[in-house]
Amino acid sequence: MGFEWYTDFVDLSYKPEDEIVCYFKVKSDLPIEESSGRVASESSVGTWTTLSRLPDRIKWLMAKVFRIDGERIAVAYKTDLFEEGNIPQFLSSVAGNIFGMRAIKGLRFEDFEVPASFAKHFKGPNFGIDGVRNIMRVHDRPLTATVPKPKVGFDADEYAEVGYRSWVGGIDILKDDENLTSQPFIRFEKRLAKVMKARERAENETGEKKGYLINITAEAREMERRAELVADYGNEFVMVDILTAGFSAVQTVRNKCEELGLAIHAHRAMHGAFTRNEEHGISLKVLTKLARMAGVDHMHVGTGVGKMAGDKAEVMELRDVCRKSWHNFKPVFPVSSGGLHPGLIPDIIELFGVDVIIQAGGGVHGHPDGSEKGAMALRQAISAVLEGVDLEDYAKSHSELARALERWGRVSPK
Amino acid sequence: MGFEWYTDFVDLSYKPEDEIVCYFKVKSDLPIEESSGRVASESSVGTWTTLSRLPDRIKWLMAKVFRIDGERIAVAYKTDLFEEGNIPQFLSSVAGNIFGMRAIKGLRFEDFEVPASFAKHFKGPNFGIDGVRNIMRVHDRPLTATVPKPKVGFDADEYAEVGYRSWVGGIDILKDDENLTSQPFIRFEKRLAKVMKARERAENETGEKKGYLINITAEAREMERRAELVADYGNEFVMVDILTAGFSAVQTVRNKCEELGLAIHAHRAMHGAFTRNEEHGISLKVLTKLARMAGVDHMHVGTGVGKMAGDKAEVMELRDVCRKSWHNFKPVFPVSSGGLHPGLIPDIIELFGVDVIIQAGGGVHGHPDGSEKGAMALRQAISAVLEGVDLEDYAKSHSELARALERWGRVSPK
Repeated sequence: MGFEWYTDFVDLSYKPEDEIVCYFKVKSDLPIEESSGRVASESSVGTWTTLSRLPDRIKWLMAKVFRIDGERIAVAYKTDLFEEGNIPQFLSSVAGNIFGMRAIKGLRFEDFEVPASFAKHFKGPNFGIDGVRNIMRVHDRPLTATVPKPKVGFDADEYAEVGYRSWVGGIDILKDDENLTSQPFIRFEKRLAKVMKARERAENETGEKKGYLINITAEAREMERRAELVADYGNEFVMVDILTAGFSAVQTVRNKCEELGLAIHAHRAMHGAFTRNEEHGISLKVLTKLARMAGVDHMHVGTGVGKMAGDKAEVMELRDVCRKSWHNFKPVFPVSSGGLHPGLIPDIIELFGVDVIIQAGGGVHGHPDGSEKGAMALRQAISAVLEGVDLEDYAKSHSELARALERWGRVSPK
Repeated sequence: MGFEWYTDFVDLSYKPEDEIVCYFKVKSDLPIEESSGRVASESSVGTWTTLSRLPDRIKWLMAKVFRIDGERIAVAYKTDLFEEGNIPQFLSSVAGNIFGMRAIKGLRFEDFEVPASFAKHFKGPNFGIDGVRNIMRVHDRPLTATVPKPKVGFDADEYAEVGYRSWVGGIDILKDDENLTSQPFIRFEKRLAKVMKARERAENETGEKKGYLINITAEAREMERRAELVADYGNEFVMVDILTAGFSAVQTVRNKCEELGLAIHAHRAMHGAFTRNEEHGISLKVLTKLARMAGVDHMHVGTGVGKMAGDKAEVMELRDVCRKSWHNFKPVFPVSSGGLHPGLIPDIIELFGVDVIIQAGGGVHGHPDGSEKGAMALRQAISAVLEGVDLEDYAKSHSELARALERWGRVSPK
């Protein structure tokens, strides 16, 4: 026995059972039966030439293209092709060499589904939406977050001061930017110490719980060390740039954070390098599912309205990937971020409801009267929407919101 | 002070000194002065709105577009924008959000250069070409490697037997495939034990040193644990899928392997998801430089002739990125792999010279007379080229090579 040609990997009468199913869009000059067979082959057991020594197990392990719909195909993979709980190995199989095959002109990994027998080996979020709400003691409205802007350049004292101003203005959660880790002018340890002190002040003055998403992105052991420091200081969150760090270290951090009782904020910087072309690469849906499996507690999903690419339909899809019931995985708190300001809050709450973390950087600190007033304006916009009052009406008795609307109006930045 | 607009990030009279320079190709409907300014802004200190609180440090930290040549731009970044020795943070800055900006239609991160003052914080390869040659005791010819094919499906005994056959036939190094880690039918520990036993037999019988690139790709702590096991068994190599694992864990493994005295084989599965579109994403040149900085000892560079995309010029460029003198980093052994068989060896040696690891999977195990004869044919092809004899002439007295040429000829698989 053996397989002589790629079409042996295609069987449209095949019914997958307890298998992993991956959905691809394939562009090729070859007939789809051959191009799809090549994808199934290269992502499972195949090679480019006929082989003589083939144990029976191989035939059983061959991936099967079981649906073809124009350029879209569905491929079934036995779970035995994958190592339990190993996200990098999953990607090396179904998102590995297949992107480089010369016979394929474009390949888009659009979606996947895993059976419960496979899902159970992944941890999913430790806290999820309810857990994060319990930490923050906020249950009935969107959480608000802000990144000090400029993204980098403040020293630890300046940074803590911006955090303090934002918190007392009403922001719930301070967040580092994706490229802020431990630069010479703002070392991690010093920033953590200063910001935690500022948080204490802000919590005492406001009587509200305040959070800090401190970016620990680094080599994996160093991330563990930083997470320990964060826990020592009594903070409840760490932030990881999950794509530039990579899923191997994300899984390491997830394990560590379980031990330390920390929630994980996932930033997806670099995704555009492989998500943006609709004919090639990996979809944000796939990445968001993987992030949920790996076990992050917050995940960026875009805004549907702001400065970053990504249309409304996709953002709504990602919202659902984060929040809808899926295997043993707790819901992930979706984070809406990118060019947001108070004038856009009605749109965001219409799209997300209250289970969303609304993150505004420039839209807080760019307020004409500074970060504290910017924070107030953001919270006022949320209150207005939840009370069913028009922003413009609400602004009549809330000057901070009025000033924000004056500055940015109700439209997205270009 | 402050910056009012993106063009503040453009200064064509600027002369970078001791800075990091990144080269991008930018597609945008905006004038290049504005689109390039947006890239420099988002990858350094900028945001989308004007800010009021700006310490002087910020202006100094602004990235500078200092060269514009059509769609190609060069951007200078102060090293202070980056954390020393942190590859994920480097990517989050210069390969992060900029790929998703709506104002940019396509962005290609083509190349970068770092000053010595920044390079010194990265380890580079522990062994490099000379170190790996010393391990293998082969100094005057290309090293040969093979992946058992089918890629996955063998159990540990079957796998070790294929390894043994390949080694006694003359292959230097056995290599796991990118999607083989620790599946139910071939657990890591058992595979390691069986293969190391087979290696001992092969070394005793041939009198040659044999190597095994065992794929440890997993969560980072698990990779460390596997690396320890590998060292305990007296093996000298581990293999990591560096992109699906991610650079954070790669740096962790690099540290661990220094402690254990292991060399690292880097597979680049998944690169096609973001390297393939010449108008967007990240070039293989950038990834290969990062891999060298992180400190892998072998790096896949393609073949210039085989089944994977990537033309000859690019493969030659990557060869040079691996081998040419660069800061404090030892040269990386380039690995040529993908659809290779004995008939292509003259082309490969013409492209690479002898400092290359020639990896053939199907081109060894698909030999009509099995893996051992396939291994012999590959070594015969190399000997022929180094002796300056035509393959066809050499095949007259070497039946294994003759059978390989009969099977595959001198051309690349489609």
